[in-house]
Amino acid sequence: MIYVTRRAEFSASHYYHNPDLSPEENRRLFGKCNNPHGHGHNYTLEVTVAGEVDPTTGMVMDLKELKKLLEAEVLEQMDHKFLNEEVAVFSTKIPTTENIAVEIWKMLEPKLRLGKLHRIRLYETPDLYVEYLGD
Amino acid sequence: MIYVTRRAEFSASHYYHNPDLSPEENRRLFGKCNNPHGHGHNYTLEVTVAGEVDPTTGMVMDLKELKKLLEAEVLEQMDHKFLNEEVAVFSTKIPTTENIAVEIWKMLEPKLRLGKLHRIRLYETPDLYVEYLGD
Amino acid sequence: MIYVTRRAEFSASHYYHNPDLSPEENRRLFGKCNNPHGHGHNYTLEVTVAGEVDPTTGMVMDLKELKKLLEAEVLEQMDHKFLNEEVAVFSTKIPTTENIAVEIWKMLEPKLRLGKLHRIRLYETPDLYVEYLGD
Amino acid sequence: MIYVTRRAEFSASHYYHNPDLSPEENRRLFGKCNNPHGHGHNYTLEVTVAGEVDPTTGMVMDLKELKKLLEAEVLEQMDHKFLNEEVAVFSTKIPTTENIAVEIWKMLEPKLRLGKLHRIRLYETPDLYVEYLGD
Amino acid sequence: MIYVTRRAEFSASHYYHNPDLSPEENRRLFGKCNNPHGHGHNYTLEVTVAGEVDPTTGMVMDLKELKKLLEAEVLEQMDHKFLNEEVAVFSTKIPTTENIAVEIWKMLEPKLRLGKLHRIRLYETPDLYVEYLGD
Amino acid sequence: MIYVTRRAEFSASHYYHNPDLSPEENRRLFGKCNNPHGHGHNYTLEVTVAGEVDPTTGMVMDLKELKKLLEAEVLEQMDHKFLNEEVAVFSTKIPTTENIAVEIWKMLEPKLRLGKLHRIRLYETPDLYVEYLGD
Repeated sequence: MIYVTRRAEFSASHYYHNPDLSPEENRRLFGKCNNPHGHGHNYTLEVTVAGEVDPTTGMVMDLKELKKLLEAEVLEQMDHKFLNEEVAVFSTKIPTTENIAVEIWKMLEPKLRLGKLHRIRLYETPDLYVEYLGD
Repeated sequence: MIYVTRRAEFSASHYYHNPDLSPEENRRLFGKCNNPHGHGHNYTLEVTVAGEVDPTTGMVMDLKELKKLLEAEVLEQMDHKFLNEEVAVFSTKIPTTENIAVEIWKMLEPKLRLGKLHRIRLYETPDLYVEYLGD
Repeated sequence: MIYVTRRAEFSASHYYHNPDLSPEENRRLFGKCNNPHGHGHNYTLEVTVAGEVDPTTGMVMDLKELKKLLEAEVLEQMDHKFLNEEVAVFSTKIPTTENIAVEIWKMLEPKLRLGKLHRIRLYETPDLYVEYLGD
Repeated sequence: MIYVTRRAEFSASHYYHNPDLSPEENRRLFGKCNNPHGHGHNYTLEVTVAGEVDPTTGMVMDLKELKKLLEAEVLEQMDHKFLNEEVAVFSTKIPTTENIAVEIWKMLEPKLRLGKLHRIRLYETPDLYVEYLGD
Repeated sequence: MIYVTRRAEFSASHYYHNPDLSPEENRRLFGKCNNPHGHGHNYTLEVTVAGEVDPTTGMVMDLKELKKLLEAEVLEQMDHKFLNEEVAVFSTKIPTTENIAVEIWKMLEPKLRLGKLHRIRLYETPDLYVEYLGD
Repeated sequence: MIYVTRRAEFSASHYYHNPDLSPEENRRLFGKCNNPHGHGHNYTLEVTVAGEVDPTTGMVMDLKELKKLLEAEVLEQMDHKFLNEEVAVFSTKIPTTENIAVEIWKMLEPKLRLGKLHRIRLYETPDLYVEYLGD
């Protein structure tokens, strides 16, 4: 078993707000991230696929294919977007780094033909990242 | 003469749009950056001050003071903001990396008491940055 | 279960010396690190907390709280300090990267109210780091 | 148990070709990497050793020894080399990042006297890496 | 005047050899880089363009165009290539970082329509780079 | 004219204190850096040499020689040292980043045989650096 990781970047904006809470509670919980105009990040995404090395190719999977998959399934939906208003799932779910990572897992996991999705790591900034390994 | 550089980061969102141009022209010129919902970046700012080394302190200027100045004059206005709508100058000027760098120069230059502002370097992403050295 | 990591930096100095060994043995084992004047590093600390995503906040824990905890429990004791002489535990324990990581675990683990401490990763330099996941 | 990681870099060239496949199939599978003249990378290798902290030294193992081992067993064979033609095992095995990582494991694992080899992580570029933890 | 820099990466292999010198002299001068099989690097290229900010666009030049230019004029010739054998100019000129930087200047300078080429910075590794500002 | 830069790292400790000032004034000016036990950094040094490309070698100067020079003239004096007590010049001069950069210039400038020393850039942390280009 070997683990292959591919990194990609996207730029998006978001804000944090829970409509079930009072404005004061939202401000206390989310601080500057509660600004409804949104603010943005260069997200760095690392997708890790686990699998056996295919002796014909010496590879777990074709990384050109993985790159296309990332572009079609993730970047196309999220890059240069305002996540709260332009990505459907985040109209009812707060687009925290945690929730974005879980959604990226759900976008990619059913589409992988070779190998098995092992881990989504998502950096919001170089100093803050989240990892999700599935249920 | 010695040059001292301090780095700071801020997260903001923006979009590119010129109201004097047609929608088609805006899309052609600005591509994905024309999305009016905005998208975001982790900007990295490097501020360079030139000066003589003060023999009493061994320093060009007190870097704790420079840090406070950056926070009060730049980050307070731009961090976690939607630049087009929340920073006054960008209601009439497109918040490109070039224009943001020039505005940061204007914010900082009159406030420096020791040393002389030498250069503003602003990264929009690790692969794209702008430098401004004044007129 | 999701893993959230926060990075912080501190600058400290240290040296390696075991009083039970001869000076020759100390020099052989520790090389340049045996210099009793000390030398220093910019340590980079990554603290990983594991937990469920709280549906009210979309977060495992409030990262502003984690940042305050890191500052109060770790940086306050170690930043800009000579570890051998100014951090009590290192008067009897050699402040190697391994031992510092274990001590940081002990400082943080009892203080976390939400989530569970999962991993301490400590970089002494970009080319050398240690990970501790508890007993 | 604690995990210690040491990073090293080497520069090498390689190309991907499977002699059992047709030229067309090789080009389809390997794209630009199929160029028989070879192309190159600055590989970044991270070697992780797991072990107990020795109370005499405060260390899992002497990192000066680990560095020498990396230099003697890995860099000496691979640095500034054309992997397909100058490293014997890659005359019959395609030098993909996956296969290089597994070969580095085989080179180092039997030579470690203290601690246990835990993981080989090999970056081909900052955006692509492979991890191998043994069978 | 403002300076805009775009970064790009390419992977190539090369070796250093001067046919006018003896094999011993070549080995003494070039060390491991004299290996005729070649070895490789992930080169990082930074291209800096100087110009006025166009008030219509807020930009010195369209960076999507600069990216296309870099791809067509530089990466297409050098990426995944053995420089000594596949880039014509390096059949008679040693492909050192210095010489590659100067050649990239010559490739790009006549093609820029807006702005003026200001600087080529080329990293062979993170620890070694060359800058060329024209004659 | 072309500029070649070589990076090197060293770890050292220091503190800031001016004996002509009162303890209060020292604390106000230097803050945490005034701690007499010292604290430390991983300094990153970039040395830039300017020169013509020698057509025989394709290089401004032999970088193996520059590396040896850096090791002999700078790292040997400063790496793993307490600068205030172990580097003579800093017994009377505060070892600020500014002063260290100027001293490194003085150490290297007279020793360069080929090329001309152009710039010393010294990072105290990734967020703070100093540049000196001579008088």
